[in-house]
Amino acid sequence: ATSQDILDTALVLRLRRVLETYETRLTACLTALADLADTHAGLSMAGRTYGQIATPTSFGAVVASWGGPLLGQHAKLSLVREELLHVSLSGAAGTLAAMGEAGPQVRAGLADALGLKDPGGSWHATRDTVAGFGAWLTSTCTALGKMGEDLLLLTQSGIGEVALGSTGGSSTMPQKANPVGPSLLVALARHTVAVNTGLQGAALHRQERDGAAWITEWLALPQMCLATGRALTLGAEIAASLSPHPDRMAANLAADGMPAATEALSFALATTMPRPEAQAAAAALAREAAETGTPLPDLANRAHPGRDWSKLLAPANLLGQAPAEARAFAAAARALSSS
Amino acid sequence: ATSQDILDTALVLRLRRVLETYETRLTACLTALADLADTHAGLSMAGRTYGQIATPTSFGAVVASWGGPLLGQHAKLSLVREELLHVSLSGAAGTLAAMGEAGPQVRAGLADALGLKDPGGSWHATRDTVAGFGAWLTSTCTALGKMGEDLLLLTQSGIGEVALGSTGGSSTMPQKANPVGPSLLVALARHTVAVNTGLQGAALHRQERDGAAWITEWLALPQMCLATGRALTLGAEIAASLSPHPDRMAANLAADGMPAATEALSFALATTMPRPEAQAAAAALAREAAETGTPLPDLANRAHPGRDWSKLLAPANLLGQAPAEARAFAAAARALSSS
Amino acid sequence: ATSQDILDTALVLRLRRVLETYETRLTACLTALADLADTHAGLSMAGRTYGQIATPTSFGAVVASWGGPLLGQHAKLSLVREELLHVSLSGAAGTLAAMGEAGPQVRAGLADALGLKDPGGSWHATRDTVAGFGAWLTSTCTALGKMGEDLLLLTQSGIGEVALGSTGGSSTMPQKANPVGPSLLVALARHTVAVNTGLQGAALHRQERDGAAWITEWLALPQMCLATGRALTLGAEIAASLSPHPDRMAANLAADGMPAATEALSFALATTMPRPEAQAAAAALAREAAETGTPLPDLANRAHPGRDWSKLLAPANLLGQAPAEARAFAAAARALSSS
Amino acid sequence: ATSQDILDTALVLRLRRVLETYETRLTACLTALADLADTHAGLSMAGRTYGQIATPTSFGAVVASWGGPLLGQHAKLSLVREELLHVSLSGAAGTLAAMGEAGPQVRAGLADALGLKDPGGSWHATRDTVAGFGAWLTSTCTALGKMGEDLLLLTQSGIGEVALGSTGGSSTMPQKANPVGPSLLVALARHTVAVNTGLQGAALHRQERDGAAWITEWLALPQMCLATGRALTLGAEIAASLSPHPDRMAANLAADGMPAATEALSFALATTMPRPEAQAAAAALAREAAETGTPLPDLANRAHPGRDWSKLLAPANLLGQAPAEARAFAAAARALSSS
Repeated sequence: ATSQDILDTALVLRLRRVLETYETRLTACLTALADLADTHAGLSMAGRTYGQIATPTSFGAVVASWGGPLLGQHAKLSLVREELLHVSLSGAAGTLAAMGEAGPQVRAGLADALGLKDPGGSWHATRDTVAGFGAWLTSTCTALGKMGEDLLLLTQSGIGEVALGSTGGSSTMPQKANPVGPSLLVALARHTVAVNTGLQGAALHRQERDGAAWITEWLALPQMCLATGRALTLGAEIAASLSPHPDRMAANLAADGMPAATEALSFALATTMPRPEAQAAAAALAREAAETGTPLPDLANRAHPGRDWSKLLAPANLLGQAPAEARAFAAAARALSSS
Repeated sequence: ATSQDILDTALVLRLRRVLETYETRLTACLTALADLADTHAGLSMAGRTYGQIATPTSFGAVVASWGGPLLGQHAKLSLVREELLHVSLSGAAGTLAAMGEAGPQVRAGLADALGLKDPGGSWHATRDTVAGFGAWLTSTCTALGKMGEDLLLLTQSGIGEVALGSTGGSSTMPQKANPVGPSLLVALARHTVAVNTGLQGAALHRQERDGAAWITEWLALPQMCLATGRALTLGAEIAASLSPHPDRMAANLAADGMPAATEALSFALATTMPRPEAQAAAAALAREAAETGTPLPDLANRAHPGRDWSKLLAPANLLGQAPAEARAFAAAARALSSS
Repeated sequence: ATSQDILDTALVLRLRRVLETYETRLTACLTALADLADTHAGLSMAGRTYGQIATPTSFGAVVASWGGPLLGQHAKLSLVREELLHVSLSGAAGTLAAMGEAGPQVRAGLADALGLKDPGGSWHATRDTVAGFGAWLTSTCTALGKMGEDLLLLTQSGIGEVALGSTGGSSTMPQKANPVGPSLLVALARHTVAVNTGLQGAALHRQERDGAAWITEWLALPQMCLATGRALTLGAEIAASLSPHPDRMAANLAADGMPAATEALSFALATTMPRPEAQAAAAALAREAAETGTPLPDLANRAHPGRDWSKLLAPANLLGQAPAEARAFAAAARALSSS
Repeated sequence: ATSQDILDTALVLRLRRVLETYETRLTACLTALADLADTHAGLSMAGRTYGQIATPTSFGAVVASWGGPLLGQHAKLSLVREELLHVSLSGAAGTLAAMGEAGPQVRAGLADALGLKDPGGSWHATRDTVAGFGAWLTSTCTALGKMGEDLLLLTQSGIGEVALGSTGGSSTMPQKANPVGPSLLVALARHTVAVNTGLQGAALHRQERDGAAWITEWLALPQMCLATGRALTLGAEIAASLSPHPDRMAANLAADGMPAATEALSFALATTMPRPEAQAAAAALAREAAETGTPLPDLANRAHPGRDWSKLLAPANLLGQAPAEARAFAAAARALSSS
């Protein structure tokens, strides 16, 4: 065994434990998100695209958009293990020549003894499995970072749709409830994305052992593993302790004449008039609603009597597939922890 | 359908064709590499770690170290398709509300009509599948880049173990055979690794549509797809047209007293004396060989008569698993193109 | 002259024109920002840290925070030119040997004829000047990207403190005014940051010419130059056409009991009582203000009569150095275009 | 003072000491490189482009290509200090409102007391100076990394033109002298380039304080500072302890018929015949030299008698400006340490 065999095998043995820890934390995070998504599957809130209120969505669906990619990362754990958890035993230049004919058998035996897979060859210079693990770490962090970004926006002064269980304060500004946890989630994601660049580049491994590339892995991987471990714990804590503010969600939806109902109004009108006319009529009412602050349903009742616009345009009736997506995520996430 | 549905679905339809092209090129590249690895499975050359001659390996095994990760990338193509080739149909804020109850059925029908998968929900804001494709592109380019790096080293003046089918020239220096192709392979890999950083960061997608993140994808993905497409074509061309120089490989192995045989000498001596003594004896002879230029086997014959050191230490007898790994790669790669 | 002399000199000649274009656009951008900062130097708005209202600032000061780093980039233009705009004339391996003794004189003459500097040596393999230009491009894009990020937040539904001159629309959601320009500014910055990673790595240039590193520059630099050019134009357009909404700024400051005045109340009370007591008293009133919606000045008038709290706590009186910083930036930026 | 004032000022105070340490180490590194460049200003070796022998250069000129960019980094230290070493004192939202009129004076006094500059405003949200420092760290590491890359190539088995003072060994392969130091230099550079990506992105700082961006700085900057500090120490150690092997340099130049003289032959012939003819004649002789191993000067003496080709084509006479560039660097570097 050359030094690289020992160090790479030791790395893999430690990463096996790291992966166990990640799985536990990922499951905890998914469980907390599943509870949130299920509980609030039908809780109306503004769907925002480009920061602008578009149509309603549900808080459960938003939570599902955080959890969905994490579910994917959980599903990939077995692939990551399959690829990564290989023993390294290939000798000075990757040929295992010093062991003669017995080499492959010794490697298989060592793999067996350590509970690792036998790669059936050398991976001294083919670092695609390490790079692949780096991609998994990166995507795990960015999935949690998306939750962080959304929470930074939802906790803003003037929006206030979510309260965090834990925030940072200020001695002179008691109103401050700084979303430190979500900020850290975003920072961990960005740092991991950056460090991953070095790890991916290290796959350009020269000849039978490339010290420069190998050492680059040593500099990058611990940073990425620590960041991912912290992000997973933090993500679970945040998910378990946050609470939505239904009143603020409703108020934000209702503000400015309830623009989130415009699309629904337009489509509803289009059932009784040509579509261009319907769009123009809806747009005109939406403008009036925005200018006067009168809720769009009231204007619709006035302009197009005969239908119960207050009910037709109530956000809770405009959620489309949002509740179903929230519940589907919750069910899938719960299936993991019960399995 | 919102604009994002149309653009994302169009993207996926184009990427489906891109993936077909990649598969063809990847198979061509693997076929060329399989031929090389098989033909030269037993061709001895110096194995080099940290740029220093370690023990012998075979050219076929080196080729297998280029092809192995590409084989892995080929195997992942079906996963990439499974994850990526989804229709997008989720409406203004991802809820498909405008289609009422019919939404999921319409999406399923559209998916069917386009030959895409039905994601069963919105992926407007969950960009893990795009990021995952980016990881695949990156690893494909770095696998080819490793081939480039090795060829830059093997074609150096004074090493000259490989000749390229096509090189860059100089009007005033006719001796120059610049390895432009391998240089480009490395450059494409490094550029893709860099651009991928932006794509991975774009998975931090805010709320229901994040223009900044989405546009970042538009800037990154074409660069990465073009680079990968070019790298695959170039990799296949280089693999199909290069030729090893067995004489230079042998000469480089034999130079400086044939240091690559030292480890084998040490292990052979250890069968008849204590290991520390054997190591010391081998090291002493290796030093003498290096200083005098006398081949190590000759010195071993003199110092430890009674064994046929010329045969025992011939590089071809010190290849260990290298030929077997070369042939195993060739067989696996050929199985692809015949299937 | 070797091919690299010709290509690098051609690059520099083109970049000289690119820099002229950048300077024009940068000046236009700074002029537009100077007008904004000056006009709105005293326009109160909420200062937000971690997305939470902290204390008041002015819109002019916010604009100055966009322009300040651009002013720095403008100031560095002469340094960039000084470092970058060198002729390359060093021959096959950087020694200019083919020209004998005359080499340096020929190089000086060529530099003179082209209006470039004479580097006095070879820069074939020392790419720090190209990397330094990359750093300038990156910082220019991130300065503009910060403006983009702030505008994404200030144009949000429910915040609405700034209106853009040009936005993206929706056929079915007429209320939408998508901040496409700011989104693009952010995307251009992120892409440039990513691509720059490859350019910086290309400074690891091997030996006397490193094709892989050199070609990496070719892949990175055009992307970065185009992105910077677009970002500068776009930044100037956005700055020239946006308008703040003083009423929304005032309303957002006044909302939720006017928390932005808490710090000032606390410090004012501390002039007449021990500081811990003052902080506790201010915090208690701030909590009451937030819960009841009663403006903090009204509560202060009730609890601590005898001072004109409505005036003392008026946002316009709490701006500190914000107006002065806004005007200082405006003056500095205008000095550029008039010089 | 808000928490950011304290942390940023503390950061700057620590970085002031870090910069002092860097300056000491940079000077030590430049001194060692100056000695090398001066001593070996005229030591002929092969200039290599694309890994191919081009024309001769000198080892001193190669050393100057390592030191030149470091000289530039040293020169920029005063700029870095000028930009970076500012006190932060701007209060809750960057306006210093809590200090009333006295704010600027207090800040100036604090700056004076700490020996820092007074920025004259807030840099809470304008992180260009931190990003600029990151660019300096990155370029310092890549300058040292280029030295590492060159040494990895020059110490290769079969090239052996440089011996390191300290190398890594192998128990079973006593011939191994692994260039661990140069490998680490390269790895530190690549890691710093990657981490810098996150730091540059953090300049996209949202509003008056962006926790996510600020924390990203905290994750990136220590990594970069440590890597730079280590690289500078290591660079100085390597420079002070390496030694060139003139015999191997000469042998490598003389090998394969001495192709490095072809360009000179071609230009010399062109003084007595049309250039295309001269090129063809030189190329024909070069091919013959390469095939037969006969030194090109001998062939030239035979084919074009009447000139002393052995002298005309001696590498030492083909160095062009290499010795002068080496000495110019040495003089400039020594001027630093004596000032």
